[in-house]
Amino acid sequence: MIYFDNAATTFRKPESVINAAVSAMQYLGANPGRSGHSLSLRAGMLVYSTRKKLAKLLGAGDAERIVFSLNCTQALNTAILGTVVGGGNVVTTTMEHNSVLRPLFELQRAGRITVSIAEPNERGVVTADAIERALTPRTYLVAVNHVSNVTGAVAPIDEIGRLCRKRNLRLLVDGAQSVGYGDIDMNEQNIDFLAVAPHKGLHALQGVGVLAIGPHVDVRPTFFGGTGTLSESVFQPRELPESLESGTLPTPAIAALNAAITHHEKTRAETRRRLRELSAYTLEKLASVRGIKIYTAPDTYNGIVSFNIANLGSMDACNILSAQYDIAVRGGLHCAPLIHRYLGTLKSGMIRVSLSADNTFPEVDFFLRAVRELAETEAIGRM
Amino acid sequence: MIYFDNAATTFRKPESVINAAVSAMQYLGANPGRSGHSLSLRAGMLVYSTRKKLAKLLGAGDAERIVFSLNCTQALNTAILGTVVGGGNVVTTTMEHNSVLRPLFELQRAGRITVSIAEPNERGVVTADAIERALTPRTYLVAVNHVSNVTGAVAPIDEIGRLCRKRNLRLLVDGAQSVGYGDIDMNEQNIDFLAVAPHKGLHALQGVGVLAIGPHVDVRPTFFGGTGTLSESVFQPRELPESLESGTLPTPAIAALNAAITHHEKTRAETRRRLRELSAYTLEKLASVRGIKIYTAPDTYNGIVSFNIANLGSMDACNILSAQYDIAVRGGLHCAPLIHRYLGTLKSGMIRVSLSADNTFPEVDFFLRAVRELAETEAIGRM
Repeated sequence: MIYFDNAATTFRKPESVINAAVSAMQYLGANPGRSGHSLSLRAGMLVYSTRKKLAKLLGAGDAERIVFSLNCTQALNTAILGTVVGGGNVVTTTMEHNSVLRPLFELQRAGRITVSIAEPNERGVVTADAIERALTPRTYLVAVNHVSNVTGAVAPIDEIGRLCRKRNLRLLVDGAQSVGYGDIDMNEQNIDFLAVAPHKGLHALQGVGVLAIGPHVDVRPTFFGGTGTLSESVFQPRELPESLESGTLPTPAIAALNAAITHHEKTRAETRRRLRELSAYTLEKLASVRGIKIYTAPDTYNGIVSFNIANLGSMDACNILSAQYDIAVRGGLHCAPLIHRYLGTLKSGMIRVSLSADNTFPEVDFFLRAVRELAETEAIGRM
Repeated sequence: MIYFDNAATTFRKPESVINAAVSAMQYLGANPGRSGHSLSLRAGMLVYSTRKKLAKLLGAGDAERIVFSLNCTQALNTAILGTVVGGGNVVTTTMEHNSVLRPLFELQRAGRITVSIAEPNERGVVTADAIERALTPRTYLVAVNHVSNVTGAVAPIDEIGRLCRKRNLRLLVDGAQSVGYGDIDMNEQNIDFLAVAPHKGLHALQGVGVLAIGPHVDVRPTFFGGTGTLSESVFQPRELPESLESGTLPTPAIAALNAAITHHEKTRAETRRRLRELSAYTLEKLASVRGIKIYTAPDTYNGIVSFNIANLGSMDACNILSAQYDIAVRGGLHCAPLIHRYLGTLKSGMIRVSLSADNTFPEVDFFLRAVRELAETEAIGRM
C-alpha cells in the first residue's frame, strides 16, 4: 500500500517509539505521580522528562506548563473553553479546522462570545493585517492555524505574534500540522497557547495531545477529578499541570512521545529536506496533468498536495485510488468548512495527498500515473 | 518487585493486549472513520468492533452509545457536565472518588446545581434507603461508586437502579473499580451511565476510558471538533458517538481494549475465584497482626485491602515497603476525601493493597512478614 494520508496520522513510527510504548506497557504499568512506590515514581519521572523535552522543543519555558490531553482537539478546547471572557470577541481565520471553529461557534451560539473571521489574501494566506482588520474593542483572543490541513498554507506567525503582543491579546496557535515540520518558539514568537498533535509531525502515537501554555496566561479547568494533589479537597487544585490533567495519564503514549522527540531531533534536518523535495516534485508533475485543479498554496512544499480531477467527485477518486491502486489519500471535506466554502469545494470536497519523508519518489510516480489514468478516463467519460 | 497497586493500574497486561496495540501502531496508523481508504476503514471497523464488544459486556444495548475518552475521569465528567439541569440537585455518596466529587462540587460552587451526600451504614455501604433519604424534589441524577477504591465496599446497584427507575432519576455508576471484577448489566440494572477504566479490571492499557450511555438519556458535548461527520458545519453534530468524540481516537489503546475483552471473557471465572481467595487470605492474616487497623468493608474480597499500622503514617509505611522490601502499595489519601473524613483518616491516610489475580500467595506471605516487622518496630519505637 502507498500511504499518502500522513496529515491525518503519520503511518511509519520509528522503532524506538514503538519500543518505548511497549516497555511502558510491560514495565511501567503504574500511575505516574499517584503513589510513593518506585514504579509510580519512575512513571512520574518519565512523564516529567517528556514535559521537559516538549518545553525545550517548543520554546515553552516551564515543563509544568506542558499539559497532556486525549488529542490535539482536546488541547485546543482546553485553551478556548478554559479562557472564555464573557461578552468578549475571538478573532480566527478562514483556514481553521473544526477543532477550533466548533468550540468557538458553540460559544457564540450560547451567547458567551462573538467570533470574527479573518480571510486569506490572494496567495491563500491570512496576514497579520487581515487579523488586525478583524479585531474589535472586545477581542481578547486570536486563534490561528499554523499550517492549513487543506492547502498547506503557512500563517505568518511572527507578525501575528507581534501584533498580539502589541495589542495585549492572547494568541492561540493550532500546531496540528506544523509541529515537527518546522521550527516554532513560543517565547520568541509571542505564542500564549500552542496545541500539538504528536501522532502527526513528530511520528508519535495516537492517544495523546499537548497544550503548551505560556507564562502570562491562566487557564481554568474544563474537567475535574483526581490529580494526586490536594486530595483532601473536593475542589480542583489550580496548579499546572495537575489542574488541567485529571485522572490517569496515557503513560504508553507519553513514553512513545518521549522517544519520538529524541528521534525527531536526530533526523529533522534530513526529513525536512526530503519532504520539501518530494512535495515540490509531486506538485510540479501534478500541475502538468490535464484537467487537474490544484489548491495547495503557492510555493508551499510541506507535504500537503490538494487537488481535484476535472469533475470527478473527490470521494469517488479516493475510493478508486484505494480500491484499484492501493493508494491511501483522503477525499471529501477536511473538517475545515470555511476554507472549503472560500475555495468553492464544499460540494466536491478535494483530494488531499499528504506526504511524509518516509514516502519515496517511485511511490509518487505510481500515484501520478494513477491520477493521469483517472483524468483521462474522466475526460473520455465527459465526451 | 511485588506489585500491589492494581486498583491504580493492573500491572500485568496479557500478551494479546500488548500485541494488539503494537499491531495497531505498525499497521493501522490511520485515523478511523476519517478517510475512504482501506486503512482508515480497517481502523474504523476495529473501533466499531470494540464498541460492540463493550456494549455486550456491559449490557449497554447500542454500540453507538459507547463513547471513548482519555480516561474514566473524563467519561464521568462527560456524563456529569453534559447533563446538567440548571437549578437541579445531584445525590451522590461519601464513597465517591474525586472524579465524581470534583465536577459536582465545582458545579455547585458555580451555583448551577446543589449536591447532596448519602452516607454509608455501619457496614460501610451506602444503601438505596440512604440514597432515597437524600433525594430532594429537584434531584435529577444519582451518582454512585460501584466499588470503593478505598474500602472495596460494593454498592447495592440493583436496589439503587430500581429506586432511580421508580423515581424517574438518571443513574450514573462509576465502574472504575468494578468493571472486570464483577458482572454488570446496564439494561437489567437500570443504569443510565456507566464509566469504565479499562486499564484496571480489564487489564487493558492506560490511554482510553469508556462512557456507556443508556437509551433514555441525552448528553450534550463538553468539547468540540472534527468528527468526520457533517464536516460542512461549524457546529458539533448531535449523533452518538461522534458528538462526544472529537478529534483523533487513541487507536492503539482501543485495539488493546478489544483484545483485553476477549482475554477477559476467557479467563474471568478463574481470575475472580483466585482474586477472592487471595483477598480473603490477605485480610484474615493481616487481621491477626497486632497494631493493625483494617478499613476494608466486612466480607469484601475484591482485592482491596486497606489498613494502617498503629500510628505509623501511611506514606512512611508505603515508602519503607517500597525501599526496603520492594513492595508497591499506595499510601496517603486516595482521591476520595469524604470517605477519609468519615473514617477519620484525612491526616494519616491509609495503606492500600490492591491485589490482582496475577499476584501469588508467596507474594502475600512476604508482604505479611514485612508488615509484621513494621508493626513490631513501630511498637518498640513507641515504648
